[in-house]
Amino acid sequence: MDANAVRNYLLDLQTRIVKAMQQADGHSFVTDAWTRDPGGRLAGDGRTQLVEEGGLLERGGCNFSHVLGPAMPPSATQHRPELAGAPFEAMGVSLVFHPRNPHVPTVHMNVRMFAALPEGKPPVVWFGGGMDLTPYYGHEEDAQHFHRVCRDALQPFGATLYPRFKRWCDEYFFLKHRNEPRGIGGIFFDDFSELGFDESFAMLRAVGDAFLPAYLPIVERRRNTPYGERERDFQAYRRGRYVEFNLVYDRGTLFGLQSGGRTESILMSMPPVVTWRYDWQPEPGTPEARLYNDFLQPRDWAAGAA
Amino acid sequence: MDANAVRNYLLDLQTRIVKAMQQADGHSFVTDAWTRDPGGRLAGDGRTQLVEEGGLLERGGCNFSHVLGPAMPPSATQHRPELAGAPFEAMGVSLVFHPRNPHVPTVHMNVRMFAALPEGKPPVVWFGGGMDLTPYYGHEEDAQHFHRVCRDALQPFGATLYPRFKRWCDEYFFLKHRNEPRGIGGIFFDDFSELGFDESFAMLRAVGDAFLPAYLPIVERRRNTPYGERERDFQAYRRGRYVEFNLVYDRGTLFGLQSGGRTESILMSMPPVVTWRYDWQPEPGTPEARLYNDFLQPRDWAAGAA
Repeated sequence: MDANAVRNYLLDLQTRIVKAMQQADGHSFVTDAWTRDPGGRLAGDGRTQLVEEGGLLERGGCNFSHVLGPAMPPSATQHRPELAGAPFEAMGVSLVFHPRNPHVPTVHMNVRMFAALPEGKPPVVWFGGGMDLTPYYGHEEDAQHFHRVCRDALQPFGATLYPRFKRWCDEYFFLKHRNEPRGIGGIFFDDFSELGFDESFAMLRAVGDAFLPAYLPIVERRRNTPYGERERDFQAYRRGRYVEFNLVYDRGTLFGLQSGGRTESILMSMPPVVTWRYDWQPEPGTPEARLYNDFLQPRDWAAGAA
Repeated sequence: MDANAVRNYLLDLQTRIVKAMQQADGHSFVTDAWTRDPGGRLAGDGRTQLVEEGGLLERGGCNFSHVLGPAMPPSATQHRPELAGAPFEAMGVSLVFHPRNPHVPTVHMNVRMFAALPEGKPPVVWFGGGMDLTPYYGHEEDAQHFHRVCRDALQPFGATLYPRFKRWCDEYFFLKHRNEPRGIGGIFFDDFSELGFDESFAMLRAVGDAFLPAYLPIVERRRNTPYGERERDFQAYRRGRYVEFNLVYDRGTLFGLQSGGRTESILMSMPPVVTWRYDWQPEPGTPEARLYNDFLQPRDWAAGAA
């Protein structure tokens, strides 16, 4: 593996994404560079970049982090029990953007490399990541665009990857206790090394590079759509699902919190304002009901079929 | 065991608490009685009672539930691995009240009985529960009062119980990823059967009966304290910690969600309006800083010592 090449790619990706999002937002992101003392549980460094109360984003952040740990935590070894307790190296870029306008969907993207470093054995390296979209008021052309950019990014690495990663995303971003998907999906993969280091890393880059073309056209299309209190209320309510998913199920969040990661960077994924209401149901026939009926259902968005 | 006596006590406790809280609030609670089909994963029944946008409570609920399950979930057997997979019966009353006025603390109380029913063996019964207080603006006399009522309720069952359950509460309601307690504590116990069924159940009743005298005097003392946007902002921010604790760590919440419990009843513990802000720190010397410095520290509140 060439960990340094991965690190350089990730730092550059973060720089490019934050630059483009700042331009779209009109406000500067704050940058927090941090290093962690090797005396602590996790040694490493990172760069958190985020904006709150921006022009476009009510809250959003993009993190780079690179950590070395003495022992893999349970959340990272559930599929690889033979590596439990081994030292590890992990690096990645992770972002969540929560726009203020309820017509602009929330988006999440993550690309990461994980290397287990069992003593006296060669490192075991894999990649993970993906991106997914969480609309409040769905638009078919947005969902199609997002999925098609994902599909096209993966195409050079094999035609089976997109359908596989799309299904994986639908399965992963699912709130079992609500029997409800988090959003309209996208792609998700983990434990990925089957193409060898070089090609797997090239695929990771293709995914990272696809983020801006997947998301920015949707932002530009929706950012000036008028909205009022009703739409803001629904957005705040639906953001509760985002919180529930990330804190109850998300492997990256739990890995970070369990392994002594930097809490404020990990929880930049939390929405700015969230509400909970008892047993709330949308009125049939409303745009809110349409989200549940037409969008929070696994569909073959790239094909455009219903 | 006399499961029926426990059930009757719990239903009566819920009735008494909701009646008293309705009186304090001035608004009626909504009652949702539910039963679950034995065809599902969990059979049982329950009664959810809650109020939203009340006079005192911005959101608050008191649940009774009684379920029979085919196999104990992992969250219930971490201390009793020999019972993993056994059928079980669980019943309890659980409440969380989130007042609107930031000077009135959020409170949580739970009393429950759990019976594992391993095939061909006698049932294994234990009790659990406790109560704890989460202030936004701390008041020493409130913390002292709350802890003293807890101490006095346990006194007849042995002088060691209060210090033991108080310490357990401090350890349990702790956000490891923030290195921060959830509030000023109270009492917490689980796997409790050491006094035999009758005395253990009597202790459970003493705890349940202590809730109103522990909480209502604090409500009456603080409910008319003036507050403004600053206090509401801090309350909404601090409520984020409540969400983080309940969704990441709370055994009851995870047990409920994992075992296919009724999501809307379980998540009545979620606050009505919550905010997250990046790396927010209180200004030294402010009332907000005082919460962190003087209250979110384990202290021997019943003794009144600093």
